[in-house]
Amino acid sequence: MLSLKHIAISSFNENVAYLHKDCDTYKVDDIKNITKIEVHGGAAPVFAFLEVVDDASIVAPNELGLNTEAFSRLNLPEGANVTLSMAGLPPSAGVLQRKIAGNILSSSEYNAVIKDIVARRYSNMDIASFLVASGSFMTATEVLSLTEALIGDEVIKWDNENIVVDHHCLGGVPGNKTDIIITAIVAAYGLPMPKTAARSLTSCAGVADTFAVLANVDASEAKLKQLIKDNRGAIVDYNSLPIAKAGKIVSSVERALGLTQQQHIVASILSIKLAAGVTHLVLDIPVGPSSRIKSTSEAMRIRKLVEYVGDMLSLEIDAVITDGSEPIGNGVGAVLEARDVMKVLRNKEDAPQDLLEKSLFLAGRILEFDPRLRGGQGYHVAKEILTSGRALEAINRMIYAQGKAPQAQLGHLTRDIVSAKAGVVESIDNQRINKIGVLAGASQYPGAGLDLLKKVGDKVEPGEALYRIHSVSTHDFAFANSFVDGNNGYEIDTRK
Amino acid sequence: MLSLKHIAISSFNENVAYLHKDCDTYKVDDIKNITKIEVHGGAAPVFAFLEVVDDASIVAPNELGLNTEAFSRLNLPEGANVTLSMAGLPPSAGVLQRKIAGNILSSSEYNAVIKDIVARRYSNMDIASFLVASGSFMTATEVLSLTEALIGDEVIKWDNENIVVDHHCLGGVPGNKTDIIITAIVAAYGLPMPKTAARSLTSCAGVADTFAVLANVDASEAKLKQLIKDNRGAIVDYNSLPIAKAGKIVSSVERALGLTQQQHIVASILSIKLAAGVTHLVLDIPVGPSSRIKSTSEAMRIRKLVEYVGDMLSLEIDAVITDGSEPIGNGVGAVLEARDVMKVLRNKEDAPQDLLEKSLFLAGRILEFDPRLRGGQGYHVAKEILTSGRALEAINRMIYAQGKAPQAQLGHLTRDIVSAKAGVVESIDNQRINKIGVLAGASQYPGAGLDLLKKVGDKVEPGEALYRIHSVSTHDFAFANSFVDGNNGYEIDTRK
Repeated sequence: MLSLKHIAISSFNENVAYLHKDCDTYKVDDIKNITKIEVHGGAAPVFAFLEVVDDASIVAPNELGLNTEAFSRLNLPEGANVTLSMAGLPPSAGVLQRKIAGNILSSSEYNAVIKDIVARRYSNMDIASFLVASGSFMTATEVLSLTEALIGDEVIKWDNENIVVDHHCLGGVPGNKTDIIITAIVAAYGLPMPKTAARSLTSCAGVADTFAVLANVDASEAKLKQLIKDNRGAIVDYNSLPIAKAGKIVSSVERALGLTQQQHIVASILSIKLAAGVTHLVLDIPVGPSSRIKSTSEAMRIRKLVEYVGDMLSLEIDAVITDGSEPIGNGVGAVLEARDVMKVLRNKEDAPQDLLEKSLFLAGRILEFDPRLRGGQGYHVAKEILTSGRALEAINRMIYAQGKAPQAQLGHLTRDIVSAKAGVVESIDNQRINKIGVLAGASQYPGAGLDLLKKVGDKVEPGEALYRIHSVSTHDFAFANSFVDGNNGYEIDTRK
Repeated sequence: MLSLKHIAISSFNENVAYLHKDCDTYKVDDIKNITKIEVHGGAAPVFAFLEVVDDASIVAPNELGLNTEAFSRLNLPEGANVTLSMAGLPPSAGVLQRKIAGNILSSSEYNAVIKDIVARRYSNMDIASFLVASGSFMTATEVLSLTEALIGDEVIKWDNENIVVDHHCLGGVPGNKTDIIITAIVAAYGLPMPKTAARSLTSCAGVADTFAVLANVDASEAKLKQLIKDNRGAIVDYNSLPIAKAGKIVSSVERALGLTQQQHIVASILSIKLAAGVTHLVLDIPVGPSSRIKSTSEAMRIRKLVEYVGDMLSLEIDAVITDGSEPIGNGVGAVLEARDVMKVLRNKEDAPQDLLEKSLFLAGRILEFDPRLRGGQGYHVAKEILTSGRALEAINRMIYAQGKAPQAQLGHLTRDIVSAKAGVVESIDNQRINKIGVLAGASQYPGAGLDLLKKVGDKVEPGEALYRIHSVSTHDFAFANSFVDGNNGYEIDTRK
């Protein structure tokens, strides 16, 4: 018997147990390997990784320490008596081995894996193994099974709505924050759009990061329902909602590993939308040589896959293949992107036209989910809502209702990246621009990023700025600067 | 600037950094994901996973805590000034992504991955991803590249020896501890055999676990050299030697995940033997329906692979395909296996004949590496050494030189598993027996395991014991008992 102690350490995903090296009850001095234990005493055993402590002020030899995650999960008071055992394999361990060996898994096997992940019986290593193994080969039926498993038990119900819409972009194009403009237009039109947005995974800023520059993006389920009831639109960080628990754990591992496997992304996105109670989804699939999806045939395979999964799970999906050949808008990074979005909504003359047109096009597709709207009218209705100022009114209502964010500062460390030669911008490398932005600190600081002063087709003179780097930390700034000197991501055609 | 503090927590593989949630210098309250940082101030930056502390007695807001692994790696005194940055991707991150995407990697790419692993720039998740991705597909050239990368910089040199021999078994057969008998015979003959043994990975006991029942298995390089000089033979835990650093980290992850991918095992074993300075190796490849290697054709593929890698790296390999259809000997688990081994070496009448014969056969193959020995004489010389008592003298010298271990106790919780019917034992399921032994606690406690009282071909009466379970912990005992009731691993042919 050991006495339970809460060690106020948060390890994000993982349960950790701490034993003193001279533990009274369990022999720990010869443990030389990663060891998973089960802690008994609560309603259900809790799995945790063992760490060994040589400081009695942290845990004494008669105590078992649990980090914040494990302690809250065990749900016993400090001082409670607990016992330990070596953890057996999680129930789905055999399923994981089968996937590592290259087998096709059944629906109930995916359920077993996801159940173990939610119960934290999988370590981050186990999750990484599952992701890499399943990422290398999955049938469409497996993607369906994984999507269903990821939806889980918590689904938001919209009792008084026939249609609940959303929009999602598969990403890979810097600056592409159409979502906020679309939500404003759709909300102004009157369709309910609870936009579940994500923080950046590998990009400079996710939609949730960009909207967080303008408003509070955290919401409970009750608050989200009230926001939609009052304003028809809301943009919230899906991490703050009690949905898609397994997806959040999995995506934390994906983020740490930089994994972006299409079949997982499809399963993850569709499960979040289904758990959020969405009935109609426009999915933007941008294609370009330096985008995530490089060819129309690849985009078409993804479209077929999402249509199949959507059909099986009664989610109406309009998957649209768009031009992802260069960044959208001028800003890359949350503060700069929010600036572009507000310029469009305010009908400013210098608003980025590509962001404006793409937003109208996609908003129009969503509006056409409304059976009352005549086919082909979506774009025109969206444009009327934007130019009349109704979209701006809608976003202001949404910001006010969600809670206005304090004014965010643009990074004050700046450098203009200039063209060495005269000519016309022939291409901009999305991946390079994203990486420079990430190095400049954009995925950490909203105020960091790149302001693209020239886009494809623009003329440049020698010494003229192509874009401006903004950083918040000197370390990031130096990192981005040394990286950009090798290749700034722009190709200039000097013959024109 | 933060003040460095050592947090006396050992996390086995992983570097961990602790920051207070109200850290003076770095904003940590909005960190919601697994985050890797770099700690600057020492000779080289140290990578660590960030954990957030809400207890100033562990770390204060002006301090940075490092766990034992990270602290010793940074090599600065407590109170030193350190700074942090977000960790960039390790240099070989792109290589890892290429392997996840299914590509063939070059020799320099494997070197880059292994270099990052040794520098602890890979997390356990990263290592798991690498193992699963590379395990699904590797060419023979890639196995060679991985082997070379795993050898690393530290290689033991045997200046006065022309031949340095070793033996290794690919495993999957419970109780198969020929290694100790072989080492005694070979040492008595006079060939140098520094047997680098491993702790159990997924089995009930590794060779190092079993020999640890008899002697101290830890040795420095200098001590190993002295042991071989004095006695010609030694059996040491390779983890105690300063070789194959990357392999140890990788194998800790493999153990935690239960991964047993043949190509990794081949690269791992051959790299350890080469780093130990071995020139001639007998490799035992047991084949059986419930062994790790299930068919002769699979065994032949492995033989070809190890011969290719051995040839390229000038390691003479005699790969022998053996019968792995049932456990070898009677004991499964360190104490019981050590008992069997000593019975053979003492020429006891009740010594397990299968263990005896297999040991003589394999020892004979090693002796024939000696150019002075006439072909075909190895087995007979080995038998003469064993029956004359010279092998027993050799093992006793080895035990004395390495340090005699205190008497180990057999687990006092026992249960006889009896046959329900009369007949003849038709087959014994290796994997089932291994699993029952592991559940009984054998991989944790030397005294736990199974004592097989009947082997294939033995007659049994109803109610007669097939084997006896030994456990040390009541929890393990209950676990093994409930598992064994479903299927005890024995097939009885009632027609005979």
